[in-house]
Amino acid sequence: MTIRCDVRAGAAVLAEDPAQWCERVRGEVERAVREFVAARCREHLGADGTAVLGEVITEFVRGGKYLRSAFLAAGWSTAAPETGATHRAAGSLELLHCFALMQDDVMDESPLRRGAPAAHTAFARWHARQGLSGSARRFGESAAILAADLCLVWAEQMLRECGADPGALARASRRYDVLRSELAVGQFRDLLNESRRRPALAEVLAVARAKSGNYTVRGPLELGAELAGASPGVIAALGRYGTAIGEAFQLRDDLLGVFGDPAATGKPVGDDIRARKATSVLLLAREHAPARRELRRLDARTTLSDNDIERYVDIVAESGARVRAERLIDQRLGEGVEALTAAEMAPEARAVLVHLARSCADRAR
Amino acid sequence: MTIRCDVRAGAAVLAEDPAQWCERVRGEVERAVREFVAARCREHLGADGTAVLGEVITEFVRGGKYLRSAFLAAGWSTAAPETGATHRAAGSLELLHCFALMQDDVMDESPLRRGAPAAHTAFARWHARQGLSGSARRFGESAAILAADLCLVWAEQMLRECGADPGALARASRRYDVLRSELAVGQFRDLLNESRRRPALAEVLAVARAKSGNYTVRGPLELGAELAGASPGVIAALGRYGTAIGEAFQLRDDLLGVFGDPAATGKPVGDDIRARKATSVLLLAREHAPARRELRRLDARTTLSDNDIERYVDIVAESGARVRAERLIDQRLGEGVEALTAAEMAPEARAVLVHLARSCADRAR
Repeated sequence: MTIRCDVRAGAAVLAEDPAQWCERVRGEVERAVREFVAARCREHLGADGTAVLGEVITEFVRGGKYLRSAFLAAGWSTAAPETGATHRAAGSLELLHCFALMQDDVMDESPLRRGAPAAHTAFARWHARQGLSGSARRFGESAAILAADLCLVWAEQMLRECGADPGALARASRRYDVLRSELAVGQFRDLLNESRRRPALAEVLAVARAKSGNYTVRGPLELGAELAGASPGVIAALGRYGTAIGEAFQLRDDLLGVFGDPAATGKPVGDDIRARKATSVLLLAREHAPARRELRRLDARTTLSDNDIERYVDIVAESGARVRAERLIDQRLGEGVEALTAAEMAPEARAVLVHLARSCADRAR
Repeated sequence: MTIRCDVRAGAAVLAEDPAQWCERVRGEVERAVREFVAARCREHLGADGTAVLGEVITEFVRGGKYLRSAFLAAGWSTAAPETGATHRAAGSLELLHCFALMQDDVMDESPLRRGAPAAHTAFARWHARQGLSGSARRFGESAAILAADLCLVWAEQMLRECGADPGALARASRRYDVLRSELAVGQFRDLLNESRRRPALAEVLAVARAKSGNYTVRGPLELGAELAGASPGVIAALGRYGTAIGEAFQLRDDLLGVFGDPAATGKPVGDDIRARKATSVLLLAREHAPARRELRRLDARTTLSDNDIERYVDIVAESGARVRAERLIDQRLGEGVEALTAAEMAPEARAVLVHLARSCADRAR
């Protein structure tokens, strides 16, 4: 990785290594989110018993990969120097992601998130500790949905107040609307595929593309570039890069959902199998497994034992789905990096994008 | 009700009767919402199977009292002539309200809304009709939460794109943020009070004040006035009016929750009793009923039969809670109308506000 000199405001600044850049930006973004959330809690959570909402949200925003914010900041850096506005805009995507995860865990009935209690689990436990009446589970789910609402509202407010140029903000807001709507619609399509006895691989991949392509990689990148006033050419190149890397990200996610190490992912072994998710890897296996009949028999069971899960993982591994997914990931990674060569941008931004692409494609959590 | 001449742009226009105004504005707002939602559906709901999201949302926005939009338009009319921007801004509050109701019905497990299937019921039935697998109830709840998300996101977009003056919109957005955050926090406080064995009357009334005061009456009014560039004096007077009328609205709601006619409210008899809601009227009864011991015995039962509900309603009626609540409503109505006398505004706007105050205080649904 070459390190170049970045001449800004007359002073020679040694540009960072991309990994250092990621670490520093993560710290700045996390601080911006924490400050914003603390201000909202002071503003809205004064009433008796409501402090727990702030505690759960604050705990939630501390974790995670901060990937969407990194892509926003990287997109921004292709066109303008990073400022406090960059970190606030990037932070708003982390709050949006908290919204999505909190809701998702309720819908999937996942008790854990990143190895710690999911928001609804935390609220249910609080309900029990407080000695409240009624169902703790139901209380936890409702409270998590409301905490997610606050994250969604605060995310939009944080973006609107980030301090970017008003014209650029207006253009970016339109993209933000699309991103948020597609996030909800993508969740619905997921829900639908999980309720279909035999969802089509093409539809599952289309949803994965819409969700990760736009929401995780491409959307944040384009948003950052737009906020910083990037040229249409750069935005278009980032769009191509984002689509390819988003797919690589999703394919890796699907591999981790079957083969991931619980210690790294914070999720139980074979989590997607247990949750009967229709992921690309599971569908590839169902299409190609020599033991597809056994897979179908396992699919028909109402509950799966730990032994069933273990056997399921083995069948998927033997089916060739794993190798095919890895090959697809490599292909997308190549396409993504290739898309950057045509666009004019600061070399540091390019280096960061190449680094981020690799971390998306090849990660353990 | 006096009808006055409104001289605007040199032409004498016969001002409407307040009831006509309400009906006309409702029509305009409903059309604006329908158009906006249709455009969003075209933009985001092209994928296979997603059209049902648009159908449920469109069906949902057709119903309701359109009270919040009326208050926004009335607030606007105190300072500037009504335009298409008024209707779009007002419509955004109806979409926000759809979000709140869809979520609320999931949390309360209410199968009906306005006598028709609630959103989660509609989605659950669709799940069954489509022959999908898994729990229809769980699918319905998740889909309703996602449809609510879309309403929340689209509401904000509709307000931002309404066409109001950018400076006024920026000031109004700050109020909008407060309104949305307080809506979610108010829901959480409600949830908490329902989980408390003996919530304090003061806390229940404080929540009712925060929820209806700000969200149903005061918030929409101030938002409309701010968008139209009203003076701080008028906004302050509307704030006092809004607080009083908001309380009257909530007290009436609580009376209807016990004594309402199902044919008018679209809810079963004694709905709040069945749902074990801690409303002002039920708390007043529990504090004052001569038969409080019987009330407590009924409260301790895990399920209430139709006979129990009937007996419960009788006890509340005999307790004097009904009379006390009616007296409080009259008092708040007087205070609200009184607050308007100090403020300078078009006489038509004042007449509409008096009319709206009466409809909030004295309604059957």
